[in-house]
Amino acid sequence: MRLTLLGTGNAAQVPVYNCQCVACGRARHTPGFRRGPCSALLEGDGARWLIDAGLPDLAERYPPGSLDGILLTHYHADHAQGLLPLRWGIGMTLPVLGPPDEEGLADLYKHPGILDFSRKLVPFETLALSGRKQSAAMQLTPLPLLHSRLTYGYAIRQGSRGMAYLTDTVGLPGPTASRLSEHPLDLLVLDCTHPPAADMPRNHNDLTRALDIVSMLRPGKAVLTHIGHKLDAFLMEHPGHLPPGVVIGRDGDVFDLGGR
Amino acid sequence: MRLTLLGTGNAAQVPVYNCQCVACGRARHTPGFRRGPCSALLEGDGARWLIDAGLPDLAERYPPGSLDGILLTHYHADHAQGLLPLRWGIGMTLPVLGPPDEEGLADLYKHPGILDFSRKLVPFETLALSGRKQSAAMQLTPLPLLHSRLTYGYAIRQGSRGMAYLTDTVGLPGPTASRLSEHPLDLLVLDCTHPPAADMPRNHNDLTRALDIVSMLRPGKAVLTHIGHKLDAFLMEHPGHLPPGVVIGRDGDVFDLGGR
Ligand SMILES: [Mn+2]
Ligand SMILES: [Mn+2]
Ligand SMILES: [Mn+2]
Ligand SMILES: [Mn+2]
Ligand SMILES: [Zn+2]
Ligand SMILES: [Zn+2]
Repeated sequence: MRLTLLGTGNAAQVPVYNCQCVACGRARHTPGFRRGPCSALLEGDGARWLIDAGLPDLAERYPPGSLDGILLTHYHADHAQGLLPLRWGIGMTLPVLGPPDEEGLADLYKHPGILDFSRKLVPFETLALSGRKQSAAMQLTPLPLLHSRLTYGYAIRQGSRGMAYLTDTVGLPGPTASRLSEHPLDLLVLDCTHPPAADMPRNHNDLTRALDIVSMLRPGKAVLTHIGHKLDAFLMEHPGHLPPGVVIGRDGDVFDLGGR
Repeated sequence: MRLTLLGTGNAAQVPVYNCQCVACGRARHTPGFRRGPCSALLEGDGARWLIDAGLPDLAERYPPGSLDGILLTHYHADHAQGLLPLRWGIGMTLPVLGPPDEEGLADLYKHPGILDFSRKLVPFETLALSGRKQSAAMQLTPLPLLHSRLTYGYAIRQGSRGMAYLTDTVGLPGPTASRLSEHPLDLLVLDCTHPPAADMPRNHNDLTRALDIVSMLRPGKAVLTHIGHKLDAFLMEHPGHLPPGVVIGRDGDVFDLGGR
């Protein structure tokens, strides 16, 4: 199975509109440093699922038939705004799986169009993501996170391989951490929005808390995402600050865990 | 003063995702026939205002300082969704003028960021859009429309020149029609979402009702906008159907009324 990071930015993205910091300047100058809305493409056994839908051009990126469905971590605009135009397609249905958020985003539930929000995920209950062969299907487990809105992270296993995609969160709830500790993780993709902060941040990890989570879960590889411009600027000023096995995600990064 | 149509599509835009009709096929083949979210750029006397904010790439299109503000017709997603990412800029303020809609869109009012929603427009009360010289400023008059949500059209005058931008609407309220009849209109930009319909459509004009409004207001030029793919397909099958002085808008069209 394979994960492609489509966007690695926080809600403000990088560059931040009207910001003159070194990180935003670098991103304007060198597009490879830009960070779009935090999202990823998950592929395995012929199945393709989008994780989060904050990108504005989903209709262009994913022609009809190219996605099996969309997994939402939560309904904040930076994770769901791309559904607002996409829903007005015709002649098809696209499942959108996510937490049982009562509000959704704007009038998405009232006018869902081609989007099918009917199936609600249950925390800690594993389900198979449709693929070519049931035996090789990716197994998805929703895991509650700590955020300003009902949010699920996802553990995804295929055969002996396992990854977790955990954003948006500050720290981890105990039961989520316990569940993640049951099997080794080849890959951990983790919210790390802020540079190291003296006080516990609200809603999103800073670098200190993110590295604490990495130390606890000991994945084969840890990739930081949902990056804010201030963390980018901090890392420009403190190169070599990340421990071995921890990398900062970039839009377009591909992580192939083997298998199909 | 000058009006540039940035988008001339309805909420579904053209091409519609997964639609195989002749109009959607043409738009996929020839990008000039694509229709983005209905919006326009209004310029006069050095002032630049965006009318509606459904485009997803406003930060790229309009660098800081390039806009004096944003006029919203209403808070449906296809007219306001571009504000969701734009708001997270820093170090500046951008006025957003529109109808006194209690909800707004998603959490825009709760987290307005750089957007200033504080000034509410009053229907039929004219105000000057800031420009270089007070005497040459564009004069804006909000006019209530008939739609599924509180919606204002706008009459804009500069010196002897006048235009009206009226979307989304089906028909016109009496007082709005009366006010528009007081001065000659050089340009009328009008909602025409649907092909001719036997029954009165809901929320948006069909071609029959749009042409009725044109006949009543007798502008120098009428431009149809907020076009749905079925109207495009109808006009491909019925060329020459539009009366003299009425054109169908295209993304990028510029209408220069003279003056500055
Ligand atoms: Mn987020
Ligand atoms: Mn969030
Ligand atoms: Mn509309
Ligand atoms: Mn509308
Ligand atoms: Zn910055
Ligand atoms: Zn079509």
